Amino acid sequence: MNYPNKIKKEYHRNINYANRGMDLENIINEANLYYLEKDIALIYKKPTPIGVVKVSYENNKQVINKAYFATQSTLDYNGLYKGKYIEFDAKNTESKTSFPLNNIHPHQIKHIRNVIRHGGIVFLIIGMNNMFYLLNGPDLINFIDSNQRKSIPYEFIQKNAYLLEYNYNKGINYLTYVDLIGGFNNERK
Amino acid sequence: MNYPNKIKKEYHRNINYANRGMDLENIINEANLYYLEKDIALIYKKPTPIGVVKVSYENNKQVINKAYFATQSTLDYNGLYKGKYIEFDAKNTESKTSFPLNNIHPHQIKHIRNVIRHGGIVFLIIGMNNMFYLLNGPDLINFIDSNQRKSIPYEFIQKNAYLLEYNYNKGINYLTYVDLIGGFNNERK
Repeated sequence: MNYPNKIKKEYHRNINYANRGMDLENIINEANLYYLEKDIALIYKKPTPIGVVKVSYENNKQVINKAYFATQSTLDYNGLYKGKYIEFDAKNTESKTSFPLNNIHPHQIKHIRNVIRHGGIVFLIIGMNNMFYLLNGPDLINFIDSNQRKSIPYEFIQKNAYLLEYNYNKGINYLTYVDLIGGFNNERK
Repeated sequence: MNYPNKIKKEYHRNINYANRGMDLENIINEANLYYLEKDIALIYKKPTPIGVVKVSYENNKQVINKAYFATQSTLDYNGLYKGKYIEFDAKNTESKTSFPLNNIHPHQIKHIRNVIRHGGIVFLIIGMNNMFYLLNGPDLINFIDSNQRKSIPYEFIQKNAYLLEYNYNKGINYLTYVDLIGGFNNERK
């Protein structure tokens, strides 16, 4: 993978997100709100699916009295950017050396393959070693298909994923890299 | 709006969905499953958002003990079809003469405008008079912007929306009309 010079440089800025007490979901929500307010993109987190077991009524309003959290069979975030379909998920790992693939459910991997085949843009945002990386879906699938490993070495992520930057007002700048992987400009091969 | 002849003809097939006891959400889910299984499109219903009030643990598993249903600020269904972003909502009305616009929340109307502006395909599937119609987002917005009416007359829907057909195995054939509004082929102006 060839990075343009200006992106390579960003690898040297060592931003330690953990020190700022930032949570991956929060900073993505912050970015999505920024993109929405600036009319740059429409990207939303899907609600967590639940299985409702018991419902009652209070003042004519439905109240859920028993329910369980269910697993999303797609990815958590999707939306529209420059006319293109975007979908991604946020995954954290405590491991410093590799990203365990069991962080991604098999039906999510199948879904990632589907999105690629149907012409959408799909990726993961991985929180690891106090950094956030954008790993493009096709790179993830190539990794899975080309070897039997149960985790992605950190070196692979450093080499193949984009290091994201956090800005206090804008959240995390992931669409900058979607511009590259989505072929919206000619900065990359 | 000019319809090609083969679509006009479909208006004469009077399919009474109510007699078959069909529910709009079910037949859309059935269609989405058909599209998924045939690898035609990836379209999912978003989970209903809930506001969780109380959570406990049973055998190390989270149980929701109190929660409320919340309102979706976007539309209920979205996904990917032929590389394009698709979003829509299903709305039923009991009225035989007009579709009340208060069926659509103001934030949903704003969202429909957003999706159009960002190049996505957005529409409503309206269940009315035992029929199902696909009303394209720009036609809906034009109606709202060009007059002060609080409901869309049935005549407007009959004239401007596409009458959908139900097939026992395939659910409702809405993507046939998305092909037309999305400019995927040249069958329509």
